[in-house]
Amino acid sequence: MSDHAAVYLDHNATTPIAREVADAMWPYLTQHFGNPSSASPQGRTARAAVDRAREQVAAVIGAHPDEVVFTSGGTESNNLAIRGSAAVAATHVAVTSAIEHPATAEPLAHLAAQHGWVVQELPVDVECRVRSDEIPSGPVGLGTLILAHNETGALQPMAEFAERIHAAGGVVHADAAQSIGKVPVAVDDLGVDLLSIAGHKLYGPKGVGALYVRRGTPLAPVIRGGGQEGGIRPGTEDVASIVGLGTAADLAAQLLPTEAVRQSALRDLLWDRLGAAVPGLVRVSPVERCLPNTLMVAVPGQVGAQLLESMSGLSASTGSACHAGTHTPSAALLAMGIDHDVALGALRLSLGRSTTRDEIEHAASRIIEAIRGDDAPTG
Amino acid sequence: MSDHAAVYLDHNATTPIAREVADAMWPYLTQHFGNPSSASPQGRTARAAVDRAREQVAAVIGAHPDEVVFTSGGTESNNLAIRGSAAVAATHVAVTSAIEHPATAEPLAHLAAQHGWVVQELPVDVECRVRSDEIPSGPVGLGTLILAHNETGALQPMAEFAERIHAAGGVVHADAAQSIGKVPVAVDDLGVDLLSIAGHKLYGPKGVGALYVRRGTPLAPVIRGGGQEGGIRPGTEDVASIVGLGTAADLAAQLLPTEAVRQSALRDLLWDRLGAAVPGLVRVSPVERCLPNTLMVAVPGQVGAQLLESMSGLSASTGSACHAGTHTPSAALLAMGIDHDVALGALRLSLGRSTTRDEIEHAASRIIEAIRGDDAPTG
Repeated sequence: MSDHAAVYLDHNATTPIAREVADAMWPYLTQHFGNPSSASPQGRTARAAVDRAREQVAAVIGAHPDEVVFTSGGTESNNLAIRGSAAVAATHVAVTSAIEHPATAEPLAHLAAQHGWVVQELPVDVECRVRSDEIPSGPVGLGTLILAHNETGALQPMAEFAERIHAAGGVVHADAAQSIGKVPVAVDDLGVDLLSIAGHKLYGPKGVGALYVRRGTPLAPVIRGGGQEGGIRPGTEDVASIVGLGTAADLAAQLLPTEAVRQSALRDLLWDRLGAAVPGLVRVSPVERCLPNTLMVAVPGQVGAQLLESMSGLSASTGSACHAGTHTPSAALLAMGIDHDVALGALRLSLGRSTTRDEIEHAASRIIEAIRGDDAPTG
Repeated sequence: MSDHAAVYLDHNATTPIAREVADAMWPYLTQHFGNPSSASPQGRTARAAVDRAREQVAAVIGAHPDEVVFTSGGTESNNLAIRGSAAVAATHVAVTSAIEHPATAEPLAHLAAQHGWVVQELPVDVECRVRSDEIPSGPVGLGTLILAHNETGALQPMAEFAERIHAAGGVVHADAAQSIGKVPVAVDDLGVDLLSIAGHKLYGPKGVGALYVRRGTPLAPVIRGGGQEGGIRPGTEDVASIVGLGTAADLAAQLLPTEAVRQSALRDLLWDRLGAAVPGLVRVSPVERCLPNTLMVAVPGQVGAQLLESMSGLSASTGSACHAGTHTPSAALLAMGIDHDVALGALRLSLGRSTTRDEIEHAASRIIEAIRGDDAPTG
């Protein structure tokens, strides 16, 4: 799938579009071009395709189709969840974690700076998990938590978080951008009111996402205009990409059981190879309750970004992609209590559907060479 | 281009994607999947494609590439222009027209209702043009005006509007969603600070647009998150659609001179046919300073939506697509001083690149039959 004939272990940054997804999109890029708001035959064809995709996305999270709002991606979904809830909240207190993606942390910072909100950040333990006993019992307007952390892969105790936030009177939002397709996600089991989905983390297209909005959850729009998506998200629907997201959701549901097992076995093999060869290597990702495709390690005394630069033929990240290029350690790792010098040596290796055992062996060799400062290519 | 073998005269609702555009997108849907924020080879390929598209979009409006911010479409571009300006404006007065698209009118209504803004709506004359002498000279924070009206096609006196708003201390935004590719648009000639572009009105994909932001124009983000698009519009870039928008902009610049002449001749032929056959038919679109592809007519005493329903094989609109399905007359037409019963009989016929003379003759026959209540098909 990847170009450049490189080993791509950066699936948490973005995934290749599944061929089935691109093929499903093509007719909507070349033939069925109608505006779903138009009463024309072209418009009705487009409307039917959007409706079908809405069913597919709803099915993968156990929701009703009318609870799915299409957006331009995970960042917009998080903004709509947080700012759309905040606009109608009676209590201006938000509860979140210290390890959120900027798409959550920045809207919350805006609420605090411009709208007088109190934002409580729950600390995380060394496994990158929020400490549930720190969740306040006082009045809360909104609780928002990343379901699986984008860097470490740590799964959060969402059901417990939701229960406590609900008990405190708040609405609960889960950022599931990294979770859908990797672990089972059922909105009723999690007990959440709002849940963000990003197409391009799910072998779907970039520029499209969804927000699950449980029936009865009050929500104001962020972008305002026409009546599309029940008035919650105006703008002409991105039909082709929505069709792609629906197909990606469908495919994810089919592949999850086998891929989760396969990828976690390869991920563990990668850890075995690296841990055996590099004394002192830190496994940042937790062993239990972690995304099956994600392995974050840290090389004490080295700089992850420099290691990556020295490894041609391997794509990975240090910290999240949004921060790549800057040599400051991940805030999430510091929040876990990891020392600055260790956090600076972090490498995020995230596997995907196309990852093979050969690729893992090759990647392990390249990483070990880079850590040892050995420039000679392997055979 | 159209499916259903129908005559498609609804290009102001949405356009088919040009084949060149779809072909340019395809490699970015199937092969080059990198995240432009990633330092990987895949990421650099994606970044280069986004940079190239930014140059193409800038070129079509006479802007610098660093003045182009990619968004999810025209609605988001208008919201970013209006709310992003409002957040940093010292004077909470906006000047607009009575005929704006909901993507402008709704954010302004929100500023008025929730943030204490005074919104002054300029009236329009019978040609659907704002009366420049009504533009206030007092302090203004923001002026926003649709460059070419989506229903009537009337071009607004934007340069004069911009001059007066600037003299009153305001920032100037043009909604050019319907204009790009149909008439020449040069940001310096217009004198605007902000200008909205929508991909799907321009034979590009849905779900992508751009906002021109003149260097030095203060603007706050609406969606908050990572550092993409200079922090003004976070979220992983929709690389394939951005490539499509760039290609569409390039193509529009090439085709505009010939297509404007060709389509306006066909549009005038359509009016000649309809006007000759239907006594009392009103030409709502102005004859001069109008989009070359747009003809709005009104059939006094009839309901446009019912006329459309009775015309199989012809796609068109009554009022804007956002309002289709409701039998209330267009607010813009009422603002022009057109009687309610006349406005209810409005039909918007908007031509495109694929429109042929045969199609226009066929469409004219179908429309005339429908108005006469003649159910017999033509030969």
